[in-house]
Amino acid sequence: MARLLIINPNISPSVTDLIEAEARRAASPGTVLTMATARFGVAYIETRFEAMLGAHATAEAAAEQAAGHDAVIVAAFGDPGLQALREVLPMPVTGLTEAALMSACLLGQRFSIIAISTRISAWYRECVDAHGLLGRLASIRSLGSPLRDVASIQQDHRDALVALAERAVAEDGADVIVLAGAPLAGLARQVRDLLPVPVVDGLSSAVRHAETLAALAPAKARAGSFALPPVKPNAGLSMGIQALLARR
Amino acid sequence: MARLLIINPNISPSVTDLIEAEARRAASPGTVLTMATARFGVAYIETRFEAMLGAHATAEAAAEQAAGHDAVIVAAFGDPGLQALREVLPMPVTGLTEAALMSACLLGQRFSIIAISTRISAWYRECVDAHGLLGRLASIRSLGSPLRDVASIQQDHRDALVALAERAVAEDGADVIVLAGAPLAGLARQVRDLLPVPVVDGLSSAVRHAETLAALAPAKARAGSFALPPVKPNAGLSMGIQALLARR
Amino acid sequence: MARLLIINPNISPSVTDLIEAEARRAASPGTVLTMATARFGVAYIETRFEAMLGAHATAEAAAEQAAGHDAVIVAAFGDPGLQALREVLPMPVTGLTEAALMSACLLGQRFSIIAISTRISAWYRECVDAHGLLGRLASIRSLGSPLRDVASIQQDHRDALVALAERAVAEDGADVIVLAGAPLAGLARQVRDLLPVPVVDGLSSAVRHAETLAALAPAKARAGSFALPPVKPNAGLSMGIQALLARR
Amino acid sequence: MARLLIINPNISPSVTDLIEAEARRAASPGTVLTMATARFGVAYIETRFEAMLGAHATAEAAAEQAAGHDAVIVAAFGDPGLQALREVLPMPVTGLTEAALMSACLLGQRFSIIAISTRISAWYRECVDAHGLLGRLASIRSLGSPLRDVASIQQDHRDALVALAERAVAEDGADVIVLAGAPLAGLARQVRDLLPVPVVDGLSSAVRHAETLAALAPAKARAGSFALPPVKPNAGLSMGIQALLARR
Amino acid sequence: MARLLIINPNISPSVTDLIEAEARRAASPGTVLTMATARFGVAYIETRFEAMLGAHATAEAAAEQAAGHDAVIVAAFGDPGLQALREVLPMPVTGLTEAALMSACLLGQRFSIIAISTRISAWYRECVDAHGLLGRLASIRSLGSPLRDVASIQQDHRDALVALAERAVAEDGADVIVLAGAPLAGLARQVRDLLPVPVVDGLSSAVRHAETLAALAPAKARAGSFALPPVKPNAGLSMGIQALLARR
Amino acid sequence: MARLLIINPNISPSVTDLIEAEARRAASPGTVLTMATARFGVAYIETRFEAMLGAHATAEAAAEQAAGHDAVIVAAFGDPGLQALREVLPMPVTGLTEAALMSACLLGQRFSIIAISTRISAWYRECVDAHGLLGRLASIRSLGSPLRDVASIQQDHRDALVALAERAVAEDGADVIVLAGAPLAGLARQVRDLLPVPVVDGLSSAVRHAETLAALAPAKARAGSFALPPVKPNAGLSMGIQALLARR
Repeated sequence: MARLLIINPNISPSVTDLIEAEARRAASPGTVLTMATARFGVAYIETRFEAMLGAHATAEAAAEQAAGHDAVIVAAFGDPGLQALREVLPMPVTGLTEAALMSACLLGQRFSIIAISTRISAWYRECVDAHGLLGRLASIRSLGSPLRDVASIQQDHRDALVALAERAVAEDGADVIVLAGAPLAGLARQVRDLLPVPVVDGLSSAVRHAETLAALAPAKARAGSFALPPVKPNAGLSMGIQALLARR
Repeated sequence: MARLLIINPNISPSVTDLIEAEARRAASPGTVLTMATARFGVAYIETRFEAMLGAHATAEAAAEQAAGHDAVIVAAFGDPGLQALREVLPMPVTGLTEAALMSACLLGQRFSIIAISTRISAWYRECVDAHGLLGRLASIRSLGSPLRDVASIQQDHRDALVALAERAVAEDGADVIVLAGAPLAGLARQVRDLLPVPVVDGLSSAVRHAETLAALAPAKARAGSFALPPVKPNAGLSMGIQALLARR
Repeated sequence: MARLLIINPNISPSVTDLIEAEARRAASPGTVLTMATARFGVAYIETRFEAMLGAHATAEAAAEQAAGHDAVIVAAFGDPGLQALREVLPMPVTGLTEAALMSACLLGQRFSIIAISTRISAWYRECVDAHGLLGRLASIRSLGSPLRDVASIQQDHRDALVALAERAVAEDGADVIVLAGAPLAGLARQVRDLLPVPVVDGLSSAVRHAETLAALAPAKARAGSFALPPVKPNAGLSMGIQALLARR
Repeated sequence: MARLLIINPNISPSVTDLIEAEARRAASPGTVLTMATARFGVAYIETRFEAMLGAHATAEAAAEQAAGHDAVIVAAFGDPGLQALREVLPMPVTGLTEAALMSACLLGQRFSIIAISTRISAWYRECVDAHGLLGRLASIRSLGSPLRDVASIQQDHRDALVALAERAVAEDGADVIVLAGAPLAGLARQVRDLLPVPVVDGLSSAVRHAETLAALAPAKARAGSFALPPVKPNAGLSMGIQALLARR
Repeated sequence: MARLLIINPNISPSVTDLIEAEARRAASPGTVLTMATARFGVAYIETRFEAMLGAHATAEAAAEQAAGHDAVIVAAFGDPGLQALREVLPMPVTGLTEAALMSACLLGQRFSIIAISTRISAWYRECVDAHGLLGRLASIRSLGSPLRDVASIQQDHRDALVALAERAVAEDGADVIVLAGAPLAGLARQVRDLLPVPVVDGLSSAVRHAETLAALAPAKARAGSFALPPVKPNAGLSMGIQALLARR
Repeated sequence: MARLLIINPNISPSVTDLIEAEARRAASPGTVLTMATARFGVAYIETRFEAMLGAHATAEAAAEQAAGHDAVIVAAFGDPGLQALREVLPMPVTGLTEAALMSACLLGQRFSIIAISTRISAWYRECVDAHGLLGRLASIRSLGSPLRDVASIQQDHRDALVALAERAVAEDGADVIVLAGAPLAGLARQVRDLLPVPVVDGLSSAVRHAETLAALAPAKARAGSFALPPVKPNAGLSMGIQALLARR
């Protein structure tokens, strides 16, 4: 029985609600979910600058609410702050991108990412690169039109997203499709039988992998690059962040 | 509630027993396990030739017994036959190496593999490379002495294995330790608090990731490189293999 | 004067005949050829699963017939079992893919592979990757239509194959063309003057490189990852395989 | 005549003073420098979490003070927030790591980084990787002992740092040495004649490269991944950050 | 105040004049330029063979004229002889490709190269690879038509070059455009406001980076792969080259 | 029956004699050899600058003497001018490094290079990289002491070279040993039974691969990056080089 904290790094409560609904569907019986939404930032993270803001907001939420949970999920594609949080939190952390890539790697050799905006593609590519998985990326394909509304994107663009996935399989050599972004949570489940290859999304992957990490219960790193940062003077930080940094 | 088929690609029933005991410890409540042991091959796979034999033996076991399961686990490090089985089986398949690498990736940036023989190291390195993860491999360290007995290796060499792991953290920059090989199943759990970084093994990872794959229930690929092989004449194959190839 | 054993990992005697005819054309005067055909497997290997079967069948043929030869050739593109056989055979071994890639590397910087089916492309890409040569691969282009008959493919599709090669030069930056697959043996010779860049096939390359390896007469590895596998218990193996594993 | 804003992402005024003194020495005649120090964060950034805080603090400083400058310098090794700032600022931005790596690439083929703490090495390696320059990294060597005082590190550890550099040349194949970290600003100048290969530091490199960027006066990206983020709702952000995001 | 020697590795005085005019525009006040033109070679280097000739001619010019300068610029894209000269000259050396790539890396993550002939593209790609920067190359796009006149290429093809750059941004993901080749010197300045991303050329970059290297004044390597070649017998070399090789 | 031109890019006639003696031992019966020695350059190429001179000298020799031969061999490790000559000569060309690497790739997965001077190692590494084979390089190990006499190196240093090879196998994971450099020609044959893995040298490999290329008789490239350079004005070139460039 795992207790998971799911943090939406964006400020959109409607996306948090979507995440929660789908997370409950994906979770094992008995898993307990706590939801959190970023206190500051933007409505939808598409760029490095927005991700930098989202990382800090995610860290603040984690600092306040992580205690008592078995694992934490950063619930935006691109996983803002994931590696940073992995240094300071005592429990495992994963994110939507990381979790989706792991699922994709478990289901085939090369994967394509279907993204909801062209702008977001460069940043996603850097995320895949940071995971060392560029060699398994068949392509990133994205909707070209500006988004009307992040909350209704599944309804508005479902056919276009499926068509992008089909082209990734036929033309780019994808063995697996990753539907990227929290606003697409649940779509993989709905289009499962429309696509000719396995399709995963970040949220259900993250919930299940977080349960696995909770079950494996790895020790917190006391050495290496994910040990707690060395204690040193700091200034201007929230109480929560200060407490994280003071922990030993 | 997942039904998992776990196939030992080696002919050693004692290792199958060890695998089963640890798999039961690692599995979620309700998960059902079926064990199988290779009918032909060698006692312990350390080389490409042995893995080639083990792959075929694993395929024969899968052909006979996979029906009715939700996922299949290839229970030897190096995952003999994994990618091949992924083409022909209707349910997800994973293996000890793949699963351990995914767990390691979820827990840190770079990992070291601790192996039980020097000879096996080159083959492990090729496996990591085939997964596209060489960029995250900090090192492979191995016991140098010839193995006395594969079944008692945990008792015989526990201290030496822990020492290798400590050197991988201190000298090679490992954030996570992977204890490699089915004969080490369970050791990660036992040395969890001795090591300064998270430590994973293939078996518990594979059991949990197989459960996740069963829960995500991805569709079988109908296109791409993991679709069923095109139907064509064959000869000299077992009934089980023939049936797998004839499936549509 | 080299004695070469050429093993067709597929069960098609008609392809073995084609291989033999072209191998005799390619061989130096005095080279002696022995032909073998897989006892079990499929008519034409296009996937990892089929290659796994072909690898075992090739090993059985090698175990029975390699004695007395100076070098062995695995005569299917993808080279099923090549690296495994290199561990256990006392003489050099090469395969059609490896040999063709080496020829291509000797003739230019980047090469394209022209393949006879779309399905085979993903596996070929993995083969090139396993050779560490992805950086020199300009592209893989393939016939899209299902094959009518593997034996008549050169007649049926010659113009289409030439057109694919021309596009690889003009659009993908290929300096050399590799015509891939045993069923295309001899085609490189026939289209030599039609294409604007050097063109090689696997079979003539393999015959010549095998002669070279026989002439260089390298010692069998007694250390490293191509030494004989450590002696250990085995079961259920053919007499030939047992003999290979017992050799010291 | 360039006007440069130099932002110390750490909260240490003593390091800002050191940076300023060395920056004045490195600058061309006529270059005007403005110094800024992070309002929040830690005394010395060694980890991803600390860098995440520093990135936000740097962005706040840039949002307040960048106007009227020709280029901006992120004056901590690791360049916290550099790529994010490059999206939102109208003038060029560089950082100490980026600038030092560019100088090193202009002076030789492979470089080694000499770092002031072991902990910092993993993060530096990820920075080099994010620049796509891992292939030119000969090694990272670092002081092993805990730092007594970041302000006096040049005096306390000069001989040890030189010895590390000498070993990088002799044993790791370094053609150029990078002395990493703002607290080492100026040391490259002082040990120039002690080392057998060219030695660079980040600060003098950043000042000179920033002058070059100011002189080249590239247009701000209106497309691609460094264009301004799409306008969208935001919340909880400082006036400065809001203004940056509202700019068109 | 830097004294720069700029060597045109091609035999075209008209290109040398173009280079000089643009170099004077790009240089800081006070920088002194000396121009040199290859005594032998071809009118415009597009291939490896031509670059080999140009490298030697550049070395002859450097041997005769480098004394008394603070830095040397190899003023042809592809930088013929750059790494060789870096071994034997006592002052820093850079080239148009190297300098342009460094500028591009300082302005964005991925860049595209716009080249003036299709033939030149393969060689440019190898240059980028030799710099270890293939991971940051978005694409190389080139004029397809044969060049009428290298001296009037900017007038003849300006619109086509701009169109290629626009496609590189829109279709290939370029964050920065590199206009490649000495005959395009100055074009970046002229089309600066036409393109939606920053655009750089090699010449202005090289002049500014050479000034920076002169200011940083790195010591000449006495060890590593850019130290002077070991003294040894030679024959048939010009007095200038002999003097370079005899220097200690 | 192949006619091979073997060009020593160094000015040492004693090394040419050594090369000739070993080439005759390695050649097939009936192969005809022509020897040439560089008219200008240095006694032994160890650096990029020396290689640049050797490339031009090799081109001059090829321009004068290649006519009437079936293949050309660049007989110095590092293959100065190889890729350049491949553009302009109508027959195949190979070099000692390229040929040795191909042989090594045909005999195992990873290879180590044993070099005769420390200085030469960096350049060799770049050569392996230019071949795209860094992923298969286990290590480069070299004699540390300055060379007394290039002609007697085999006698002077045989035991040290064998010891380096043994360490490469035991510590670096080499499956094959490459003895690098024309002065080591023949040593592989002599130490064949002393080393625990296959050992190759460049010269015997180059002779055999050149025979193979002559037998395969590939067409000269009329497109791609190895077609003849476009015709254009030139100046100051030898008659031989002019003739090569004028050829259509």
